[in-house]
Amino acid sequence: MGAGAFGTALAISLCQNGAVTLWARDPEHVSVMQAHRENTQRLPGSPLPETLHVTNSRDDLKPARIVLISVPMQRLRSFLETYGDTLADKTLVACCKGIELNTGLGPISVITSVLPETKAALLTGPSFASDIAKGLPTALTIACSDVATGKALQNSLSTKVLRLYRTSDAIGAELGGALKNVIAIASGAAIGAGLGDSARAAVMTRGFAEMNRLAVHLGGHPSTLSGLSGFGDLTLTCTSSQSRNYRLGLSIGAGKTFDPAVTVEGASTALAVATLSQKHNIEMPITQAVAGLIENRLDVQTAMSALLSRPLKEE
Amino acid sequence: MGAGAFGTALAISLCQNGAVTLWARDPEHVSVMQAHRENTQRLPGSPLPETLHVTNSRDDLKPARIVLISVPMQRLRSFLETYGDTLADKTLVACCKGIELNTGLGPISVITSVLPETKAALLTGPSFASDIAKGLPTALTIACSDVATGKALQNSLSTKVLRLYRTSDAIGAELGGALKNVIAIASGAAIGAGLGDSARAAVMTRGFAEMNRLAVHLGGHPSTLSGLSGFGDLTLTCTSSQSRNYRLGLSIGAGKTFDPAVTVEGASTALAVATLSQKHNIEMPITQAVAGLIENRLDVQTAMSALLSRPLKEE
Repeated sequence: MGAGAFGTALAISLCQNGAVTLWARDPEHVSVMQAHRENTQRLPGSPLPETLHVTNSRDDLKPARIVLISVPMQRLRSFLETYGDTLADKTLVACCKGIELNTGLGPISVITSVLPETKAALLTGPSFASDIAKGLPTALTIACSDVATGKALQNSLSTKVLRLYRTSDAIGAELGGALKNVIAIASGAAIGAGLGDSARAAVMTRGFAEMNRLAVHLGGHPSTLSGLSGFGDLTLTCTSSQSRNYRLGLSIGAGKTFDPAVTVEGASTALAVATLSQKHNIEMPITQAVAGLIENRLDVQTAMSALLSRPLKEE
Repeated sequence: MGAGAFGTALAISLCQNGAVTLWARDPEHVSVMQAHRENTQRLPGSPLPETLHVTNSRDDLKPARIVLISVPMQRLRSFLETYGDTLADKTLVACCKGIELNTGLGPISVITSVLPETKAALLTGPSFASDIAKGLPTALTIACSDVATGKALQNSLSTKVLRLYRTSDAIGAELGGALKNVIAIASGAAIGAGLGDSARAAVMTRGFAEMNRLAVHLGGHPSTLSGLSGFGDLTLTCTSSQSRNYRLGLSIGAGKTFDPAVTVEGASTALAVATLSQKHNIEMPITQAVAGLIENRLDVQTAMSALLSRPLKEE
């Protein structure tokens, strides 16, 4: 459900394993995809396999056992409330990364709070939709606190080239995927401001340290943060202009404007995490700086100088 | 000592803190640097500060308390044997990354084994010589098992833009800096073979996991590996064509030849670590694959297929 770039790429890839339905809300978007056998709007250049059923009918989802939900994080709750009847008896796999602004919850926790009877999991980790759609090798994390469900999903959703590693640490996986987008904005800002690759590596490293501090405080495992959904995704997002979060950072660093119509998960996540870190009294200077940049309370030079003039210490 | 790109960049940067001497063995190289006030051969485009004394005289090193040694890892031992008399009463800071082929030792251990009376440290972490020379912000690790010496070096060698974080975990810092070069070759090979950014992120993540396995087994701390000298340097080296290790990987992946005159620390380190990991019975499939590629025992397709067809498991 959700025919953005990532949802469409997963649908294309999973056709290797059996019957897949790609559901989108907008009937016109569905008609165009049906007519062109391509998601020209969100994932141009990747043909939809003949076996992929594209629909906007909720009835077509009835036979599905597993539903991958690929909607932006801040819309997940209202989506689940709207489609709860259709989803109630299924295994739900969130395919978004972030923290809900009002509650501080991650994707699995939002699913569980809206639909407590469903089995909830998270598909996260380092990937670009275009790589998955092209069939390039990709490794992701499937996170589910229920081990049996996690193993079943690992088997159902892995293909020869899309490899899923499993964890039962839902909190660590949720936070890794969410927090890395904030650090990606900071990394983009460093490059956009002309500070160079070495400075970006420093931002990423200190950013990884603060991701770990918060995640471990909230019950996540360091090994999850060091895995695909933390380290791996951080490293991809902070170094590639394919990432919208990184591109937003580049614009901020260069003092340019950024298209407000593009969903940038890290922008709202930065605000949510800045609040969360203060509530739990966890030192997160990079996240605080990004929140300040997003809210126009800080300029890049001030933010970078503040980060660079912190006292010298041990790692 | 050593007027390669990194040694020269450090000499330029440290002139901010006081008197610095840049020593090179080759009198002709020294004459050219003296005449042009630039290391045209190894770091073109970065003028040498007027206060930097460039010399090939050992006598000129007598007043120095701290000597930074910037020679390739595999030449460090013979260098120390040759210049031991000059260096005996000083604090020595190795500025190279790797593992000695015959012994499996890192830079600090090599210094200690040749000159047991000296204080030995390691300057490592994510940086490119050109960024340091330009005065762009950079954060590095100074590793020294003796805390007081480490703190003194942290103060002497930090500038406003070159920030040193300190650790007393010499083993972790030595291994982080060495092992990341091997993973950088694998990352370059993935990109060179056209597998895409997501595949590289998977190689880096699984590479980081095997770096941790070996380092922790040999007594390093996970927090060092997650810091600048591990995570930070890995992330920089695996994503930038400024890195010689990454460029060697790109060539291997694309089936092209690589200039044998260029020192690539990761190539010899891969062979040293492949031996070390077998000796200690630590699973390091990416390092083994890189060693196979370096020794022409494996081709890229076979290596990548082997890595991608490993059993699905937990992170």
